Order: sequence, then C-alpha cells, then structure tokens
Amino acid sequence: MARFRVLEIDAEGRKAASEGLTRVDPPPAGVTRWIDLAETNDESLEILRERFHFHPLALEDCAHLDQRPKLEEYGDHLFLVTQGFTCTGTRVKDLDLHELHAFLGERYLVTVHADTIPALEAIWQRATEDPRSLERGLDFVYYLIADGLVDQSFPILDRIAGELEEIEDQVLEGPRRSQLSRVFQLKRHLVTMRQVLSPQRDTMAMLARRNHELVSERTALYFRDVYDHLSRINESIEAGRDLLGNAVEAYLSSASNRTNEIMKYLALLSAVFLPLAFVVGFFGQNFDNLPGIRDWVHSDTLMLSMVAICVATPIGMLFWFRSKHWF
Amino acid sequence: MARFRVLEIDAEGRKAASEGLTRVDPPPAGVTRWIDLAETNDESLEILRERFHFHPLALEDCAHLDQRPKLEEYGDHLFLVTQGFTCTGTRVKDLDLHELHAFLGERYLVTVHADTIPALEAIWQRATEDPRSLERGLDFVYYLIADGLVDQSFPILDRIAGELEEIEDQVLEGPRRSQLSRVFQLKRHLVTMRQVLSPQRDTMAMLARRNHELVSERTALYFRDVYDHLSRINESIEAGRDLLGNAVEAYLSSASNRTNEIMKYLALLSAVFLPLAFVVGFFGQNFDNLPGIRDWVHSDTLMLSMVAICVATPIGMLFWFRSKHWF
Amino acid sequence: MARFRVLEIDAEGRKAASEGLTRVDPPPAGVTRWIDLAETNDESLEILRERFHFHPLALEDCAHLDQRPKLEEYGDHLFLVTQGFTCTGTRVKDLDLHELHAFLGERYLVTVHADTIPALEAIWQRATEDPRSLERGLDFVYYLIADGLVDQSFPILDRIAGELEEIEDQVLEGPRRSQLSRVFQLKRHLVTMRQVLSPQRDTMAMLARRNHELVSERTALYFRDVYDHLSRINESIEAGRDLLGNAVEAYLSSASNRTNEIMKYLALLSAVFLPLAFVVGFFGQNFDNLPGIRDWVHSDTLMLSMVAICVATPIGMLFWFRSKHWF
Amino acid sequence: MARFRVLEIDAEGRKAASEGLTRVDPPPAGVTRWIDLAETNDESLEILRERFHFHPLALEDCAHLDQRPKLEEYGDHLFLVTQGFTCTGTRVKDLDLHELHAFLGERYLVTVHADTIPALEAIWQRATEDPRSLERGLDFVYYLIADGLVDQSFPILDRIAGELEEIEDQVLEGPRRSQLSRVFQLKRHLVTMRQVLSPQRDTMAMLARRNHELVSERTALYFRDVYDHLSRINESIEAGRDLLGNAVEAYLSSASNRTNEIMKYLALLSAVFLPLAFVVGFFGQNFDNLPGIRDWVHSDTLMLSMVAICVATPIGMLFWFRSKHWF
Amino acid sequence: MARFRVLEIDAEGRKAASEGLTRVDPPPAGVTRWIDLAETNDESLEILRERFHFHPLALEDCAHLDQRPKLEEYGDHLFLVTQGFTCTGTRVKDLDLHELHAFLGERYLVTVHADTIPALEAIWQRATEDPRSLERGLDFVYYLIADGLVDQSFPILDRIAGELEEIEDQVLEGPRRSQLSRVFQLKRHLVTMRQVLSPQRDTMAMLARRNHELVSERTALYFRDVYDHLSRINESIEAGRDLLGNAVEAYLSSASNRTNEIMKYLALLSAVFLPLAFVVGFFGQNFDNLPGIRDWVHSDTLMLSMVAICVATPIGMLFWFRSKHWF
Repeated sequence: MARFRVLEIDAEGRKAASEGLTRVDPPPAGVTRWIDLAETNDESLEILRERFHFHPLALEDCAHLDQRPKLEEYGDHLFLVTQGFTCTGTRVKDLDLHELHAFLGERYLVTVHADTIPALEAIWQRATEDPRSLERGLDFVYYLIADGLVDQSFPILDRIAGELEEIEDQVLEGPRRSQLSRVFQLKRHLVTMRQVLSPQRDTMAMLARRNHELVSERTALYFRDVYDHLSRINESIEAGRDLLGNAVEAYLSSASNRTNEIMKYLALLSAVFLPLAFVVGFFGQNFDNLPGIRDWVHSDTLMLSMVAICVATPIGMLFWFRSKHWF
Repeated sequence: MARFRVLEIDAEGRKAASEGLTRVDPPPAGVTRWIDLAETNDESLEILRERFHFHPLALEDCAHLDQRPKLEEYGDHLFLVTQGFTCTGTRVKDLDLHELHAFLGERYLVTVHADTIPALEAIWQRATEDPRSLERGLDFVYYLIADGLVDQSFPILDRIAGELEEIEDQVLEGPRRSQLSRVFQLKRHLVTMRQVLSPQRDTMAMLARRNHELVSERTALYFRDVYDHLSRINESIEAGRDLLGNAVEAYLSSASNRTNEIMKYLALLSAVFLPLAFVVGFFGQNFDNLPGIRDWVHSDTLMLSMVAICVATPIGMLFWFRSKHWF
Repeated sequence: MARFRVLEIDAEGRKAASEGLTRVDPPPAGVTRWIDLAETNDESLEILRERFHFHPLALEDCAHLDQRPKLEEYGDHLFLVTQGFTCTGTRVKDLDLHELHAFLGERYLVTVHADTIPALEAIWQRATEDPRSLERGLDFVYYLIADGLVDQSFPILDRIAGELEEIEDQVLEGPRRSQLSRVFQLKRHLVTMRQVLSPQRDTMAMLARRNHELVSERTALYFRDVYDHLSRINESIEAGRDLLGNAVEAYLSSASNRTNEIMKYLALLSAVFLPLAFVVGFFGQNFDNLPGIRDWVHSDTLMLSMVAICVATPIGMLFWFRSKHWF
Repeated sequence: MARFRVLEIDAEGRKAASEGLTRVDPPPAGVTRWIDLAETNDESLEILRERFHFHPLALEDCAHLDQRPKLEEYGDHLFLVTQGFTCTGTRVKDLDLHELHAFLGERYLVTVHADTIPALEAIWQRATEDPRSLERGLDFVYYLIADGLVDQSFPILDRIAGELEEIEDQVLEGPRRSQLSRVFQLKRHLVTMRQVLSPQRDTMAMLARRNHELVSERTALYFRDVYDHLSRINESIEAGRDLLGNAVEAYLSSASNRTNEIMKYLALLSAVFLPLAFVVGFFGQNFDNLPGIRDWVHSDTLMLSMVAICVATPIGMLFWFRSKHWF
Repeated sequence: MARFRVLEIDAEGRKAASEGLTRVDPPPAGVTRWIDLAETNDESLEILRERFHFHPLALEDCAHLDQRPKLEEYGDHLFLVTQGFTCTGTRVKDLDLHELHAFLGERYLVTVHADTIPALEAIWQRATEDPRSLERGLDFVYYLIADGLVDQSFPILDRIAGELEEIEDQVLEGPRRSQLSRVFQLKRHLVTMRQVLSPQRDTMAMLARRNHELVSERTALYFRDVYDHLSRINESIEAGRDLLGNAVEAYLSSASNRTNEIMKYLALLSAVFLPLAFVVGFFGQNFDNLPGIRDWVHSDTLMLSMVAICVATPIGMLFWFRSKHWF
C-alpha cells in the first residue's frame, strides 16, 4: 500500500484531502493538486511513471537518494532536487540530511521523500488548515518548503561557529586530544554542508532569474530570497572553515608551548642538580688514595666553597634564565 | 510611539522637518522626503507596509537584522541593505556592525536602522542645516550615507595591519600565548569584515553601472567611487589575511627556536657535567677492595689526568659546539 | 589479425554480428553499425584510416593512450575520448585507468580501446542479446558506455572517504608511519582522479548542452545525467582532499602529543631521581676528611631529614605537576 | 606659488616651455599642452578645477594619495591613476610608492604627483629637448610615463627572487632568526606590490582594448605592451609568493633538523655516560658493609668485567645508532 | 655578418635554400619563404625592420628575451612568442628555456631565436629534404615547431613526478636534508614551467579558435591539439605541486617521528639507569657515619632487595612502555 496523500483545491476554492491512490493523477483543468509520497520504493514510483509519464531518469533519481541538488526541465514540468540539514541537541553531533524530490507542473506538485521532513510537514499542516495557501500557486508552495529546508541550516552553522570559538579559547589554555577530534568532526560537517548547499544556490538562482512559465514572476522574487539565504549560508561555511584553521593552529602552537614549558622545567632541574651532583661527587672521592691532594682538601676554605657553590648554583641559574625571558 | 523623523523639501526649496507619524507617506508631486526610522519593531514596519505598500519580504528583512548587503528592485523603488563597521579605542577590540535598510523611490528615501549610525547622523545634521543637500537628489543622499558607512572601515583596517606588523616583530623576539590569542581575534575580525564587505561591492557595482531611472548618471559616478573604496578595502582585507599567516608562522618558528635554544642549553650542561660526574665517580670507587688497581691509582700521573680531564672536557665541548654553529 | 568485432542492425531490425575485418566500413543507408576494436596497434588504425578517413590527429591519439578526455568535431563525425577508473579489492590499492576512444557518426560508432573495459563489455553483451538497444540510437549506446565508465568511480570514492575517516580516528589514538604512507597514496589517487575526471565533465556538458545533429535531444538529457554524476564525483574528490588535510594534521598533532607525553615522563623521572641522587650523593661524601662537618652529620636530625626528603620530593613534584595539568 | 610647469607645441611644431600659472588652461585649437603639477595642495587643485572644470571626485583623489590604480571617463577627458615602485640599494629594503594622477584630454595632458617620479622626469627631459615627442600624441606621452613607472618593478622583483633563493639555501645550512624576519619583510613587499599592480593591469587592458577616441589605435598597441609587462610582473609576484612558502618551510624543517641533531647528541652522551656512571657507582658501594658480596667482589674477573664494560658500552651504542641511521 | 638562412618554394614547387642576406625580404606572389634568424642582435633586427617594416615593439621584444608567450596581430601578419623547455640527463637538474619569436605573414614565416632550438632544427631539416612540408602552408610549419617545443615538456614532467614519488618514499624511511633541498629545486622548476606554459595555452587557444585568415581552418585543428597538450601539461604541473606538498609534509612528519624515536630511546635509558644510579648511590653512603642505620643495612634482606631492584626496574619499565605502545 503506497503512502500517498493528496491535497486538492478546485476553481471555486473547494478543498479536498485524501490518502491512498485516489486522485494520484494529473488533475483536470481548474483543479490544483499537491501529491505527497513519503516513500521511495519501486512500486510507488511505478505508479507515478504510469499516471504522470515522468522521465525514467528523474524517477531513477527518486529511487536512489544522495543526489545533487538540481533543476531539470522536462517539457511541461520541472524536476527539482532540494536538500537540507537538521540536527538535534545543542551540540552538533550528527547531521540529518533530508532530500526532497519534486515534480512541479502547471496544476500539480508531486513531492517525493524517504523520511519525514519537518519543513514539509509544517507546510502541509498549514495548507490542510488554510486552503488559500494553495491558491497562491504551487510554485509558492514549493518555495515555502525549500525556504523551510534551507533555513534549518542557520542555527546549525551558528552553533558550529560558537563551538569553534569556544574550542579555540580552551585549546589555548590547555590542548586536549578530544578537542582536536571534535574540530575534525566539525570540519567534516562543514565539508558535507558545503558539498550540498553550494550547488543548491545555483538551482535557486535559476528559479529566481528566469521567467519560467511554471514559476510566476511574483514567486521568483521569493526564490531570490532563498538564494540570498543560501549565499549567506555559504559565506558562513567559508568563514567556519577559516575559524577551523584557527583552532588547529591554536592546537599545534599550544602543544609546542607545552613542550617548551616541560623543556624549561627539565633544563631548570638539570641546571640545579647536575652541578650539585658534581660537587657532592667531588667530595665523595677517596682522597686517602690521592696523597697529593688529601691535605689540600682538609682545609676549611674548601668546606666553605662547597657550601657556597651548593647555594649559588641554583640561584645563578635562575637569574640567567630570567635574563633570557624563559620564565 | 514609533521613532519616525521626516525631512521634506518642496519644489520651491522650502524645507520642513517633523518627528512622529506626520508626513510618513509617499509625498505628493514636487515634494522630496527623507523618512528615517530608528527602530525595527513590527508596529513601525506595519505603518510602512500600510502607507508605502513595500514588499513583505523587504519588510521582513528590516525586522530581522544580520542580512546580506543587497539591492532588490521592486517596480517603482529599490530596496537596499548596506552594512558598515565602527570600533572604538586605538586597539581593535570589538567591531560594531551597523546595518542600514533603505527604500529609494522617486520622491522618497526611507531609511530603517536599529542603532544610531554615526555616518547617517552626520548627513541628517547637514541636511537639516542646509536644505540644498536634498536638492541634489535622494540617490545622492543615499550615496553620502553609504560612503560614510564604508569609509569607516579604512581606519579599522589600518589599525589591524599596523598591529599585525607589531605583533610579528614582537613574536620573533619572544613568543607569548596572548599574542597568538590576539592574532586569532584579529583574524575573526577580518573574516567578519570580508563576509560583509565582499557582497557589498557587488551592490555598489550594480548602482554604479546600470543607468537605473532612480539613480541619475551623475550620482552613478559617485557610486563608482564607493565601489573603488570597497575594492581597496577588500584588497586590504586579503593583504591582512596574508600578514596574519606571517604572524602565525612567526609564532610557530619562534616557539621551535625557543625549544632549540633550551635543548642546546641542556646539551651543553650535560656535555660538561656528565663526563665530570664520571671522573669524580671513578675516583669515588673503593680501590682498597680492588688490589690489582690500587697501587696503579696511587700515582701522580693519574692525579694530573683527572685535573686535566676536568678542565679539558667543558672546553672541548664548547669548541665542538662552536664548530657546529650551535652557539 | 586485427581484433575487430561488429554489431549491425538494418532498417528492418535484423541483427548481424561478426568478427574480423568484414563489415568494418561505413554502413550503407538504413544500416546502423557498432564497430569495436580492442587493440591500438598501427595496423588496425591504418585500416580505420583507409576505410573511414578519420583525421590523422584523432588516430594518433588512439595510438597513444594517456590522453585528456575530450570532444572534437570533424565534419560528419565526433571524436570522443572518455576515461574511467576501476579498482579491485575492498581497499583502494591500485587504480586501473580505462581509456575509451570513440568515433560517433550518423550510422556508425567505432570504439577503440587497449584493455578490456567492463562497462563496455556489459553493454556489448546486452546489445548482442537484445538488438533493440541499437535502435535507440548510437548516441544512446555511447551514453550507456560513458555512464558505466563514470559510475565505477563512485564506490572507489566512497571507499577512500571511509578509509580516510578510519585512518583519522586511528591516527588520533596512535600515529604510525604506515598510516601516513597510506594517506599519501590515497592523495595520489585523488590527484589522478581529479586530473582525469575534471576535464571529462566539460566534455559531457558539451554533449548535454548543444543540440548537435549527431546527438538527439532525447539522449542529450541522458548526457546531462552523466554530467551531474561527474559534478558529484568532483565534489566528492574535493571533499576527500579536505579530509586528507585532516588526516595529515591529525598525524602531526598526534606525533607532537606523543613527544609531549614522553617529555612529561622524562621530566617526572628526573624530578624524582635527580634530587634523590643528590641526597644519597651528599651522604656518600667522605666526612672523615671534612672534620668541621663530621660531627654535625652524626646527628639523628640529619638522618630523619634525609628520609623525609627522599619521601617528600617525588610526592611534591607530583602535586606540582598536577597543578599545572601535566597529567 | 603653485609648482606648475607647461610644455606646449602648436600646429606648426613650435615649442614653448614655461613655469608658473601661465598657460595653465585648456589650449586653443591646434595647440597641444602637457601641464605638470608637482604638488597636491588644495590651492593648486582649485586652480585646475576653475580652469579645466575637472570633476570634484577626481580632484579629491588627487588631494589624497594612496588611491587604487583606475581609469575613469568624464565626457571629454580621461582620469587615470597609475602607481609604481622604486627602491634604492642592491637589497630591497624599503619600497617607494609613486602615484601619478593624470587627466588626458584631446589637446592636453595634466599630470599631478606629490613626489619626484624618475620615469616622468626622464620623459619631460626628452620632450623638452625634442618637441617631436609631443607630436606623436599626448596618449603616447602618457604611455611612455606609464611604461617607465611599470618597468621599474622588474629589477625589484628580480632582486627579491634572487634573495629568496639565496635565503632558502642559507636556511637549509643553518637557520637564523634574521632570515625569517627578512622573509616576512619580503612577503610584505610582495603583498604591497600585488595590491597595487594587480588592479593596474585591468586599467591598461581597458586602454589597450577599447578604441577610445582619446587613445589612438596606434597607441593602444603600446598600452597592450604595458599590459603584457604587468601580466609578467603579476606572474612573477605569484611565483615569488610560492618561493616564500619554500623559504618558510625550509626554515621550519631546518629548525626541526637542528632539534633532531641536538637530541641525537644528547642521546649519545647519555648512552655513553649513564652506563659508565652506573659502573663506577657500583664499585663506589661500601662493600665492607655488605659482607656477603665483599669477597666475591675481590676477584680479578670482576675487575676485568668493569674495564670491559667501560670500553664496550660506548662502542656498542655507536654501532646500534649507526644501524638506525642516526648518524 | 647576420646569421640568416632562407628556405623558399615557388608556385611550381621549386625549392631554393640560401644563407646570408639574399632573399631576406617579403617574397613575390606565388613564392613562400621561411626565414630563420639564429641571433638577436640589433644589426640583424634592423635588417628585418627595414625590409619587412615590422612593428618596433615586436622587434624590441625580439631583442630582449624572457618575454611572455603571446600573440599579437599587426595588420597583415601575426607576431608570436612561444617558449619551451628542454633538459638533459635523467634527473631534472637545470631547465633550458627556449624562446622562439615568429612573424607569420601570408607568404613568409620569420623565426627569430637566440640559441639552437632542437624542435626547430628538426623541422628545418625535414623541410630542406622534403619541400612538400612548406606546401601545407607556413601556418602548418609554425604548428610543427610549436608542437615540438611544447611536447618536450612531457618527459620533463614525467621525470619530476617520478622523482617526487621516489623522494616521498625515501623521506618516510629516513629524512635527509638533501632530499628537501631537491624538493625545493623541483618546486622552483614547476613554478617556472607554470609561469611560462600557462599563458602559452591562451595563445594556442586563440590560434585554434578564431578563423583567422592567416591560419587555415585545417591547421586550426592542429593548434587545438597543441592546446590540448598544454592543458594536459598544466594539469600535470598542478598535480606535481600537490605531490610536492606531500613530500614536504612527509619530511616534516618523518623528522618529528625521528625526534620521537630518539626521545623514546632517551626515556628508556633514563628509566633504566636513573633508578639504578639511585640504588648504587644509596649503598655508596658512608653508613659508618650513620650509626642508626648501619646495623640495619648489614642484613641479607637488603642485599637481596638491591639485586632485585636492579633487575626488576628495567624490566618493569619495558613492560610499562609496551603497555603505552611506545615500542
């Protein structure tokens, strides 16, 4: 049983809604229909092929998700692929990619998707309650869905930018491996988003620019707005990539700072204890066996020297280090 | 109470200024009006929608700041979004982003903004005192504001460039974490400025190039000047990003220099004291328990050798290091 | 004996297949021929030159593999060079580059290649069994082969992306030289693929866009599909290069992390044992020879101090390190 | 007293030269004038505005140096801003930026600059001595100056490229901080030059391409030559930036080489003396207090072992290091 | 005596060859001449200027080598600058840059060059032996030379790519300074080649695209082939630059690996000998002076502990290191 649902409005503004295969065909003159198919199995697509005579390539695209956003013209209808992202939680963990395939004809709009798309559900809800939504034209309905899909990327990018700035500050204070791992994850998200949203901008530009007969001049203005949003999103992605570079550079320089600090500590330790070890080792020699030196050693002068050296060495080293700005 | 203020000049050059809702409507023939709205709440925008019939998308943009600079044509008027930066103090701490929305019609200019924009205030002041400012056309008034907004970026960029050069020199002398943190902050500023001012150039190019009926040929020349300024600013931003790379590279290489220096110090220390420790350790052995070697040790030759080694080792090491150009 | 094979279909849909030199010439009106040549020696190409009068430059390209993908128009036929990759095994070890040269005329398609191309074999097989394949036009046959060649790159890129992500995770846990070596190998693969598949996209765009008389409008739609696939592949290659950067950065930062860890270990070791060595060295001095100090040493206070120092030093160091977040 | 000087030639080829305000106005028909103003104060520019009616924006540009190279058309004349660099000495220390503003009309050329421009002085000298220079047209005179200004960049770039190559070699032998500082200085020079000379190319392309009535077709050929020079300069700048990357990478890898070398030295030192210290420390134990072991120690075997270990340890270590290719 | 040589063929296919100044002038109708000048001194160029009236700028370019590849149209002839590289030996040591200046008229081809160009010599040889070479047109002769010049870059790039891959492998095994120095040398070669061959592609595109009257449509096809070769070369250069990045990254990571290895060795050495030094130092204390502890020390338990610690310490350390995957 194919998961079709249909929303229809006729010339007198009478609304009709149905589920199942009823009304899944090109509507008669004066009637406007939005047909939504929430699955992409071969059976359902075969029904579309039979009743609407859509192009095999377009239906093949519907069957296989993970397409590029695109706009294709087929005689009396447009085939549109749009993609968008949602994510849950305040941290951007996993991006959900939503893909919407749409056939936009003069009197019908057929939307095909595999999962539930929040933006589409919201528009469907609104259209069910208020039939005038459909009266503004099916191109406008498509605009509403596309706009909803695209705008979901803004909060994601804001959260990524915010987190990157946070990580950058944390890294400068103390680098941890988990931060780097997180930065790479965010970079993967940005790469994915750019891969999807960059070609989408071209699609919207095409809808906004050309005076296509299926897209009214009034609605084209609205598509220009989506185009602007996508431009802004793409610029944010680029900016995010720049900030990513910051975070990685901060990590590397923080790690090298850390190395320097430990090195300096080691150097200080050695500076204090290596000379001292020599001093105590010197007096640990078996002077009895070295007659020439034994008597010379038995003086108080040497005694005092030893104490002086023991005290002076670390102090001298510390001053020398200070003079080199190591501490 | 909406914060509207109006400046008006009629065909005979008579000037009139008012605050509040009076005169907030398209002026009659022969009259030229500049209407400024210093807030962006729904109520005020609703008044504009009712009286001027501006497009819902444009008014929605006005309600939500943080738009992209853009130029949109709506039948008898243009909708323009322009952005600029100001910052206070000699060091560039926080950038203030100013966003100006403007509707430019044949006889009216409506400017909408959320905060006080210094450039706009200056022009308003001048226009209030000298009504001839409005006589040169509302497109020219808009040019004056846009030019003022844009030119505020020059001192910011100069200060950033100057500070970067300074940091670069300081870093080469002694790298500190605060410098790196500052470099990343400046990079964020440059990324933000590029994100805003790069699309703005396209807007100005459109105003300068096309012979739009709302922009006189004379004023288009002036917009070309703003375009030139924006080109210069964008090139400065790119140059600034190049210099940023310098600063980070300087930091990393300075840190690795520092490591090298400490390493060399450690090596020197070890080179002097490890051999000495061996020498004094050797003579610290209990020769009485080693009868074969005891007598051999009791010679003066050995005595002298020990002293010679103690003196020669550090000197030899120093010469060898010199020959390797370590110091 | 040249390795020619011919597949022919005449106006009445009668199919004929043959091997060898028979039918290797431009077919008479009403007949459609696909001639496949599975070798590129001078002798065979000379036969093509004599019978089809192909341009010397095109035949020279056939003789020397390793061309750029391209599309050249010669009066009544097109000369096309297409390339694709296959690889065996689940890990991407060695890429096999397949190169297909094709002459597409009104009634003939001549395909020339040096090795066995799986995509071409599959189409040939299908065409042999079902002669209607040829009836859709030779341009469509060429589309099928090109599509097959191109689509073989998708699983390769997926495997590379998957492996890169895997390596990135492994590297962050423990960097090994073999991983880096593998990353560089994958980068070489991506560089090779981009070098080949980026110009190919232009070729397909040409076939899809222009209403060339040799390519029907219906088939041009299909070439647009190949163009879309190539766009997606090129975007995946770019994304793969970004991820490569991740892997190398992960490696470098992991290596510097490792250095830090060892350094910290060394510092800890020195912090514990250098002071202890001083303490035991101090009591190893020959106090008998130092009369001033001998009696002072014989006290219990000193005894206890030594034990206290021996215990307190490592504990104090550990706490200090903790306070610096070294562990 | 404004620093004007004028060079004039009338229809009969009669030459006249003067200083001061005489002849500073648009010349009568048949007369060709080159007016040079070697200062940019408001007073002098006011004279130009009064007598030539130049556009306020152009004159404002003249008053404020540090413009972008540009070409602006104002009805009957062109306004041109050209920039060039000179530097003194064999090492490129400080770049001098020369900025030339020129108004090119049908019968006059007005050049405005703040400092003495060598290229302009040379042309003026030639024109004073040989009046036929002016006869080839004022556009040709402007070409001569622009060509002179641009060509001064060639020796600068050659010297920078040469020095970079030199630094790269030196750095690989032994990195010093002053080299890095110099590399960053050269990078700043290249960034500045690119910022100025890249837009200049567009200006020259405009002069070379369009058949502007003020630039004869013959002279346009010459401007194409300047365009070619600027293209070559821009490519040299890009190449210089690539070489800069080399120098920095060489520095970083040289520094890490240096670290490795010191590390190896330290490891060698420790490998030799730590085992020896253990050996001599072992025989420094008070065996008298350890009755179980005292007698065993008194053997010759142990004696020999000690000597053997003392000799074998450093030798063994050296061989092991060799086998790992550390030396 | 100028080094001119001339090859001539008249309408009846009669060939004539001469050296020296004879026939160095535009040929009469029906006669086709290829004039080659193997030097670029002023005297020879003056002869060309007098007899052919070439443009001073073009002749100036001939006098000064190191031009950009370019194509300039002068009324009845084209002026072409082409460049190519050769190198000797199997390793790419020094690149020889060959520069060819050519004037291509309807009945003459004048080639000017400073050094012996192998590609040109080969064509001259062939044309001397087989006069029909000239009959295909002078544009075709020029194609043959340009093709020869360009194709010499293929083996150079192949050798560079091969060597880079080799270096990358070697570097991962053991980094040496000479490798890095070589990588930078190869990078300089690639930068030089790109600087020359990238503008050359534009020149060939111009020759291939436009139906210029001096270049027959048939020959334009051949120039398209050269264009394809140059595209391939440019892509190879880009790929080479990518591989260069690999080599440098491999070097840096190899060096940091090496550092890690030495560090680990040092840590191991210290881990074994620092505790042992403490143990033997402990028993080296003068227990006679420490009456409280002397008797306690005289037990066998302590004896055994010492031996146990001496043996257990290095073994324990080794296991701990293993558990951290350091070895």
